[in-house]
Amino acid sequence: MNFVEVIARKRDGFELTSAEIQAFVRGATHGHIGDEQLVAMLMAICIRGATARETQDLVETMRDSGASWKLGQAVPDAVDKHSTGGVGDSVSLVFAPLVAACGVPVVMMAGAGLAHTQGTLDKLAAIPGFRTVASSSEALDRLAKCGVSIAAQSEDIAPADRKLYLLRDVTGTVPSLPLIVASIMSKKLAVGARRLVLDVKCGSGAFCKTAETARQLADALMGVGQGAGVSLRCLITDMSQPLGDRLGCANEVRASLEVLSGAGDRRLRKLTVELGVEALELAGKTPEAARAELERRLADGSALTRWAEVIRTHGGDPDESRLARPSRTVPVQARRSGFVAAIDGEGLGWIAVTLGAGRRRQTDHIDLAAGLRVHARVGDRVEPGQPMATLEVGDRAVEPDVLASRACAAFRIEDEAPPKTPLILARLGGVA
Amino acid sequence: MNFVEVIARKRDGFELTSAEIQAFVRGATHGHIGDEQLVAMLMAICIRGATARETQDLVETMRDSGASWKLGQAVPDAVDKHSTGGVGDSVSLVFAPLVAACGVPVVMMAGAGLAHTQGTLDKLAAIPGFRTVASSSEALDRLAKCGVSIAAQSEDIAPADRKLYLLRDVTGTVPSLPLIVASIMSKKLAVGARRLVLDVKCGSGAFCKTAETARQLADALMGVGQGAGVSLRCLITDMSQPLGDRLGCANEVRASLEVLSGAGDRRLRKLTVELGVEALELAGKTPEAARAELERRLADGSALTRWAEVIRTHGGDPDESRLARPSRTVPVQARRSGFVAAIDGEGLGWIAVTLGAGRRRQTDHIDLAAGLRVHARVGDRVEPGQPMATLEVGDRAVEPDVLASRACAAFRIEDEAPPKTPLILARLGGVA
Repeated sequence: MNFVEVIARKRDGFELTSAEIQAFVRGATHGHIGDEQLVAMLMAICIRGATARETQDLVETMRDSGASWKLGQAVPDAVDKHSTGGVGDSVSLVFAPLVAACGVPVVMMAGAGLAHTQGTLDKLAAIPGFRTVASSSEALDRLAKCGVSIAAQSEDIAPADRKLYLLRDVTGTVPSLPLIVASIMSKKLAVGARRLVLDVKCGSGAFCKTAETARQLADALMGVGQGAGVSLRCLITDMSQPLGDRLGCANEVRASLEVLSGAGDRRLRKLTVELGVEALELAGKTPEAARAELERRLADGSALTRWAEVIRTHGGDPDESRLARPSRTVPVQARRSGFVAAIDGEGLGWIAVTLGAGRRRQTDHIDLAAGLRVHARVGDRVEPGQPMATLEVGDRAVEPDVLASRACAAFRIEDEAPPKTPLILARLGGVA
Repeated sequence: MNFVEVIARKRDGFELTSAEIQAFVRGATHGHIGDEQLVAMLMAICIRGATARETQDLVETMRDSGASWKLGQAVPDAVDKHSTGGVGDSVSLVFAPLVAACGVPVVMMAGAGLAHTQGTLDKLAAIPGFRTVASSSEALDRLAKCGVSIAAQSEDIAPADRKLYLLRDVTGTVPSLPLIVASIMSKKLAVGARRLVLDVKCGSGAFCKTAETARQLADALMGVGQGAGVSLRCLITDMSQPLGDRLGCANEVRASLEVLSGAGDRRLRKLTVELGVEALELAGKTPEAARAELERRLADGSALTRWAEVIRTHGGDPDESRLARPSRTVPVQARRSGFVAAIDGEGLGWIAVTLGAGRRRQTDHIDLAAGLRVHARVGDRVEPGQPMATLEVGDRAVEPDVLASRACAAFRIEDEAPPKTPLILARLGGVA
């Protein structure tokens, strides 16, 4: 097969054969197609798109590029959870112990932060001693001990995705629906849980800026999952402002402890419970029974106790007092009175990255203590001088005044109260 | 400037600024944009296209990526000639001495073969001792001595084009109108002739398969040239069959000698004279006077004499007997009676390449003796067993029977005589 001719066919908008998709993915995995040709194909897919059949082929060939953990064979009722990435989204750290405390095993693969979002892997690094699992036998061991296994994407899971993602990151080919679907689902299927709860973010702070693209992405993810025999539920949720009130690594671990203690950020708690309802429904419960059990586990402390067990089973120390603390704080004050009409989550996310809570380059060092807290939410009334947020500055040299000014600009203040936006925009479900 | 954002803008179909185009071309020239990002931009341009303004920016920035020979300042009446590439197209080897014999200096830049076409540079290599010029002072010296300067694209002319072309060749990004225009015109403008005659090929054997795309390419080339102060003429010519009756390096030098001797292939002679008419019109002659003078120079032997002078001035030996000869020939015979309805020039071009007349990879060695001769042309009547072509085999080990069978299939024989196709499809002219 002459791969230049395959590139030319996708460039001209033709559908590729399964053999051509396989040649692409295997060439990426084994290195016998050069980076220049891989990028040419990625850009052609990014602009021309891919059919459902091509996307399914991409997912399956990328899944098969590495190991298959087959966790769903050993633990059929295990549920996996995935979010397409948001700001102040600490859901994973609450969902895992909460759903496990309700008797449903949870397998998760934690990723590093992308762009302006902080990754679960970086947040877990704020817990002293926490070690993600790196093999299926380790994963089964942790599931047996605490009902939760949290893995990092290891070398052997979907190596084609890692190779292609590094190229996409520097060539403007990240925002492609079929490539996003292939990246997410190839890893999920390689780990092998048979139940999957998806949280597709929609709004200014997310890849999907509109309800239409969010729906397309959700449908594509569900289609591929069902095609592979996975039972899925999907929520499309609002990302027109940060989800929770804390951004940063140690900060988001604190946010999880607050919610698991029965208090914490209202929106973070609500979304976690709703995703938990979907997980428990996949396990056969009614929505009412599921919601009641989740609320009970939050209220009676058993979810918090489970989180401590999960942390210890993963080698970590659950003592909150050992989390990194910022060396100083800088207030972000309102300059006028009015209602918060919108909050630029992407802007706040980048400020958190600049403070040290994320990476601009792969070699950047993460400051676990850095981040920010959000006090004013969309719809709140503020007065001049009132703190809308607090920057939490760690050991990195930054210009906090400049960042505070940028953070202030992320809050749009208007005279009229904005219309209310629901947190859950849509629910989609399909059982294989 | 974050170049990933520039790529993303072109990917999404936005027009780039002049500064963004400059960043792209300079990054290619000086190596501070990596090949992956260059390819991503090339594919985005290939699919999304470029506006006339963007194309002009591409041309000018690529022109300025290297030296400027400014030949038009020293020799204002010098004319340059360019063809978009055809099969059996030996026009350059006839045009240069013929037009110079009529008193109009000719500057040409000879390129290596691309894909199924043989390049003028490779054909000139068949003349023992022939050396192309490599600097503006050498070019001026040859122009003064024999009225013709033939250069190879040297390291210092439009290095951005060389860099980008090597990437395009392996990534399926060759057939892009703005990239083709930029590649051709950046080199023409760097050499600096103020008059240019273009031959845009149209048909199954050319990049432009339809009259519409040929017209678009011609208009784009003329627009860029006029914008840079160059007077241009353009013929759109038929490439639905090989132009001349000889393919291959030594073979096409022979074809030029035949036409310059007053005989030779009728279509090759006709197209060269018509392009010569355009060149002489740019020098101020009427079409009638131009055609009469060109015919006279062919008839009285002065064009042939000039070719010998041009070859000697470029260090070569004009003795025809020193041209390489094939070690054996293989006839390609008609299998049925009928009329030749079409000849697949691209197919015959690839057969010539396989015989050794061109390169599949840059490292391939060219066999100067290899090639083929075409005896039956579109419209001719053939009988079973009649030779339609002859393969000329040099020192390369090939399976001549397989190739003869493929060559036979390149001739489509039908019962009815095909409609006549004119050689010159359109004439476009513009004087700056």
